[in-house]
Amino acid sequence: VFLGEFEHTIDEKGRVAIPARFREEIQEGFIITRGFDNCLQAFPRPTWQDLAQRISTLSLGNEEARHLRRLLFSGANEVTFDRQGRILIPQNLREYASLSEKVVIAGMHTFFELWSPERWQTVLSTLDSSGRIIAEQLADLGV
Amino acid sequence: VFLGEFEHTIDEKGRVAIPARFREEIQEGFIITRGFDNCLQAFPRPTWQDLAQRISTLSLGNEEARHLRRLLFSGANEVTFDRQGRILIPQNLREYASLSEKVVIAGMHTFFELWSPERWQTVLSTLDSSGRIIAEQLADLGV
Amino acid sequence: VFLGEFEHTIDEKGRVAIPARFREEIQEGFIITRGFDNCLQAFPRPTWQDLAQRISTLSLGNEEARHLRRLLFSGANEVTFDRQGRILIPQNLREYASLSEKVVIAGMHTFFELWSPERWQTVLSTLDSSGRIIAEQLADLGV
Amino acid sequence: VFLGEFEHTIDEKGRVAIPARFREEIQEGFIITRGFDNCLQAFPRPTWQDLAQRISTLSLGNEEARHLRRLLFSGANEVTFDRQGRILIPQNLREYASLSEKVVIAGMHTFFELWSPERWQTVLSTLDSSGRIIAEQLADLGV
Amino acid sequence: VFLGEFEHTIDEKGRVAIPARFREEIQEGFIITRGFDNCLQAFPRPTWQDLAQRISTLSLGNEEARHLRRLLFSGANEVTFDRQGRILIPQNLREYASLSEKVVIAGMHTFFELWSPERWQTVLSTLDSSGRIIAEQLADLGV
Amino acid sequence: VFLGEFEHTIDEKGRVAIPARFREEIQEGFIITRGFDNCLQAFPRPTWQDLAQRISTLSLGNEEARHLRRLLFSGANEVTFDRQGRILIPQNLREYASLSEKVVIAGMHTFFELWSPERWQTVLSTLDSSGRIIAEQLADLGV
Amino acid sequence: VFLGEFEHTIDEKGRVAIPARFREEIQEGFIITRGFDNCLQAFPRPTWQDLAQRISTLSLGNEEARHLRRLLFSGANEVTFDRQGRILIPQNLREYASLSEKVVIAGMHTFFELWSPERWQTVLSTLDSSGRIIAEQLADLGV
Amino acid sequence: VFLGEFEHTIDEKGRVAIPARFREEIQEGFIITRGFDNCLQAFPRPTWQDLAQRISTLSLGNEEARHLRRLLFSGANEVTFDRQGRILIPQNLREYASLSEKVVIAGMHTFFELWSPERWQTVLSTLDSSGRIIAEQLADLGV
Repeated sequence: VFLGEFEHTIDEKGRVAIPARFREEIQEGFIITRGFDNCLQAFPRPTWQDLAQRISTLSLGNEEARHLRRLLFSGANEVTFDRQGRILIPQNLREYASLSEKVVIAGMHTFFELWSPERWQTVLSTLDSSGRIIAEQLADLGV
Repeated sequence: VFLGEFEHTIDEKGRVAIPARFREEIQEGFIITRGFDNCLQAFPRPTWQDLAQRISTLSLGNEEARHLRRLLFSGANEVTFDRQGRILIPQNLREYASLSEKVVIAGMHTFFELWSPERWQTVLSTLDSSGRIIAEQLADLGV
Repeated sequence: VFLGEFEHTIDEKGRVAIPARFREEIQEGFIITRGFDNCLQAFPRPTWQDLAQRISTLSLGNEEARHLRRLLFSGANEVTFDRQGRILIPQNLREYASLSEKVVIAGMHTFFELWSPERWQTVLSTLDSSGRIIAEQLADLGV
Repeated sequence: VFLGEFEHTIDEKGRVAIPARFREEIQEGFIITRGFDNCLQAFPRPTWQDLAQRISTLSLGNEEARHLRRLLFSGANEVTFDRQGRILIPQNLREYASLSEKVVIAGMHTFFELWSPERWQTVLSTLDSSGRIIAEQLADLGV
Repeated sequence: VFLGEFEHTIDEKGRVAIPARFREEIQEGFIITRGFDNCLQAFPRPTWQDLAQRISTLSLGNEEARHLRRLLFSGANEVTFDRQGRILIPQNLREYASLSEKVVIAGMHTFFELWSPERWQTVLSTLDSSGRIIAEQLADLGV
Repeated sequence: VFLGEFEHTIDEKGRVAIPARFREEIQEGFIITRGFDNCLQAFPRPTWQDLAQRISTLSLGNEEARHLRRLLFSGANEVTFDRQGRILIPQNLREYASLSEKVVIAGMHTFFELWSPERWQTVLSTLDSSGRIIAEQLADLGV
Repeated sequence: VFLGEFEHTIDEKGRVAIPARFREEIQEGFIITRGFDNCLQAFPRPTWQDLAQRISTLSLGNEEARHLRRLLFSGANEVTFDRQGRILIPQNLREYASLSEKVVIAGMHTFFELWSPERWQTVLSTLDSSGRIIAEQLADLGV
Repeated sequence: VFLGEFEHTIDEKGRVAIPARFREEIQEGFIITRGFDNCLQAFPRPTWQDLAQRISTLSLGNEEARHLRRLLFSGANEVTFDRQGRILIPQNLREYASLSEKVVIAGMHTFFELWSPERWQTVLSTLDSSGRIIAEQLADLGV
């Protein structure tokens, strides 16, 4: 599982080291794609398969489902580690997430996210002020 | 599975090469038909069978279901590869999707779509500006 | 299965050839009856049995169901092929569907329809202009 | 099964021949009773048993169900064939359905109906003008 | 099963003969009690058991269910046949149903009812004028 | 089962004989407690167990359920027969049901009730005037 | 099971005897905690386990569920019997329920409650005047 | 299970002893994270796994679920006991819960919470005044 948060450096070629604890879970590589809220989301292969299959059961007739397929599936990249345990984040994804020198890598239990440090700070301060609302809505979701 | 996007050339006879990675999944041919949003949709045979059977369970009394049967089933073509791994896109389908010299082939996980490059750019810019709406509606769909 | 569309000639006696690909699926004959939208619908025997049985489970108390039984069951004809692979369309059904010299035979996957060419053109142009509406309603139907 | 329509003569004693194709299905007799829309409905014994049992599960407390029991069960007649394959329609049922010299016998797949020719013409013209409404309501019924 | 209708005489002691066809089904006696619409209802023992058990599952907290228990269970009589195949209708039940010299015995498939002839005529004329309403409501009941 | 109604005498010590037919069903005693509508309700042990267990599954958070527990469980008495087949009705229950010299014992199929004769007459006249309402509500209860 | 009501004395140290019939059911001790309506509730261990587990399945996001956990779980005491069969009611619980010299112990079938005699009288008079309302609401609860 | 409440001291390094009864249940360490209502919540590993997995089934499209993942999973710490049975509460969590010299450790059956003593007093007084509301809402939750 992926827990905790880490700030790493991106080199000039777009390469970044993945925390060792995370790397153990995804030694044979993983899928990285555009996430909601302008971060990148990285999925271990089985998690990705499961997500992709559930999306594939959505109706062809549903316009949002057609949009989602085009967003996720045409933008997905399979990435692998180089000898130093780094991955290369494709240029277009770095642009999508506004990543330049630093990246926050945050565990999300079954996957992890990559954020520009500025956006991550915005996320954290949102959480501080909206805890009660999150709680209530969780109850509605049955968790 | 079908992932990523590719831009290929259509020759003067309407022939186009299919990406090698896609071709491996559909060596014995596939079904191509008119898709929603004025693209063409190409289905591996089992995926097509499943879709066609689900449509066939819809009520004869439902007017939209009668329309859908007439749209999909009277327009479906089974295509196979020539020795160069190309397929021939029938004239009426090329007209339907406004395909002339170039075609974008975009993976949709369980099937793929063929787009005119101009329309594909429109799709991508739509996705950029409507990510939050897509997200919310996905939650409604339970994905 | 029944796919694609074909235009055939009806002779002066009301006989018409059925596409060879269709005939293979229904060698021992089939049921033809009045369809919705003023076409004729032709069903392989098992498909017909299934449809007829489902209609027979409807409540006797439901007025529309009583109407439907009277429409479909009192008008149904079992047709068989002559030596030239032709069938005879009864006079009253030809009148119902306005068939004279030409007939469009259109595959509907599990059955097929017979149309006057003029009405079929109207159907096709309806489909062109209402694709988005069909898509949305399909999503509502869960396909 | 009972398909197609037939016009037969009623003799002065109220006897009528049943189409041979129908008679084969009900050689040991059948039940005839008052139907909705002022026709008579004739049921093979197993079909009748099933209908009667379903009605018998309705609540004693439901006023319409009490009415229905009194309508169907106090008026039911078991009829059998004479040597000429004719049945006798009881006087009170002939009056109920306004039958005198002629009767239309119309197949309803699992049962059949007996109509005065005049009323049957009214039914057919109703069907001509209300096909679209029937279709829509069928979709609501899930057929 | 109990089908058809019969008019029998009640003697001065309140005894009445039961139609032979009905008696065969209930040779070891039956239960007679007050029915809705001011008739009497007679149940074979298994039918009664089933009805009584279903009523016994109703909530003690439901006022109508408490009323129903008091109506049916405190008024129920087990009746048996004398040597002439007659039963004795208790005085209080004859009063409840206004029975004096004549009684109509009407089959209700799984049970039968006893009516004063005058009330039975009222029932029949109600059925004549309300067939369409009964039909619609049956459809709502799923029969 | 408990059917029919009986009027018995209560002696000066509060003892009353139980109808022999009822006693056979509850030879090893039964539970008597306060019932709704100011009667007493007497339950065979298994019926009581079942009722008590269902009440015990109600939420502690439900105020009515807490009231019900306190009403039924703090007032329940296990009674047994003396040598004359009589039971002793505790003083506080006799007061609750206004019982003095006479008591109506009325069968309710799976249990029985004890009423003051005056109140029982009120119940019966209520039933006479509200048969149709009871019938309709039963239909709503699915019986 | 716990049935009936008993009034016992609390000694100056807060000790009280438990009715012998109750004690047999909980020889190895039980859990006592604050109950709703300002009484104390005492649960046999298995009943407590079941209640605690059901509460533990409630959403962390539900504010009332968080309150309930804090109320019940932080206040729960496991009590055992001394040689005289008495238990010690902790000071804070006695204050919560306003218990001083006397306590009413009332059986609730699967658990029991401890009340100050004054409050118990209030409960009983509430029950007298609200029987009909309780009955109706029980019916809504399906009991 | 975790029951009861305890007040412990935090030393200048942020270390605190865990009640012995609690420690037995979590000898191999546990997870501590930010809880709702500004307390800290500590979960045994299996309880945490179950919670985390249920959150992980929530839709990626649901904004609140994305917030929750970022709140819980990026802030989670696995803690273990030192030789004196103490744990170290990380600085950022102490700040979140306003913990300095004293901490109330309160059992919540399947997990436990850590509170500043001031906030805990506020919680307790809230419970005193809102018992009836909690009860009603529990009934709605089916407990």
